[in-house]
Amino acid sequence: MAPYVADPELDLVLERTIPVAPDRVWAAWTEPELIKQWFTPAPFKTVGADIDLRPGGRSNITMESPEGEQYPNDGCYLVVEPVSLLVFTSVMTEGFRPVSPSNGADDLPFTGRIELTPSGDGGTHYRAIAIHADADGCRRHDEMGFQAGWGAALDQLVALMS
Amino acid sequence: MAPYVADPELDLVLERTIPVAPDRVWAAWTEPELIKQWFTPAPFKTVGADIDLRPGGRSNITMESPEGEQYPNDGCYLVVEPVSLLVFTSVMTEGFRPVSPSNGADDLPFTGRIELTPSGDGGTHYRAIAIHADADGCRRHDEMGFQAGWGAALDQLVALMS
Repeated sequence: MAPYVADPELDLVLERTIPVAPDRVWAAWTEPELIKQWFTPAPFKTVGADIDLRPGGRSNITMESPEGEQYPNDGCYLVVEPVSLLVFTSVMTEGFRPVSPSNGADDLPFTGRIELTPSGDGGTHYRAIAIHADADGCRRHDEMGFQAGWGAALDQLVALMS
Repeated sequence: MAPYVADPELDLVLERTIPVAPDRVWAAWTEPELIKQWFTPAPFKTVGADIDLRPGGRSNITMESPEGEQYPNDGCYLVVEPVSLLVFTSVMTEGFRPVSPSNGADDLPFTGRIELTPSGDGGTHYRAIAIHADADGCRRHDEMGFQAGWGAALDQLVALMS
């Protein structure tokens, strides 16, 4: 598959080399019991990870606030290429069914693209891209703290898998 | 891939056995010069078919009314398994980018699933499914004439490829 060229107007990119091998990063992204241990920046927690790891399979992840309020995020996987590329989206659920625009659940539609490349020293060159519909959505995601949030989650992944 | 079980509340299904072999039906669905000859029920025409046939590749098809008004339909492919399964959606464009909810272009979001099975007599058991976000979208697509429209297009495909 051709390399993805990010559009700075529409995409947000977190890129870092981490001291965790690609197969371990892949496991952290794709095994429910591991997902629950790193995916959501503290003090929020990941309390549910109901997934079916195949194109069109569900990726339903539930976060919980410190006050105990739950935030379900239902999506589906688009590309599953162990251990190099995982693509998923918030705009479709299991079976590639479009998310209902009327349910209001998806106020920030995006597709996530996780690229893993061996870094040569046993680690991984990690590139996470959030692909948005328009510049407004991209800017809002940026202002919500994409870099800090995805970065803190990645720190948790590294701490867990090292 | 497991067979898709249609949901009668959310999905519309056109199912027919046609006297065209699966590889010919596949060609009609995936070659731009063929797409333009059958895809849109007359008196509308298909005047553009700019496609990149791979998961995440664009499926941009432009229809034209008898008055010359053009209707672009930009989408992307999700599953490309010659010559048995083609899945595409209107809710993402090239690179799996979500369609902007603000551009108003996609008032009827759906995913299309085309299943081809050899019928045993050299033809194809053809099953086309429109997968909607919610019951309202499904009903509207039904009332817009899904069966008549997709059926008329399929008649044109059969006439072209026989």
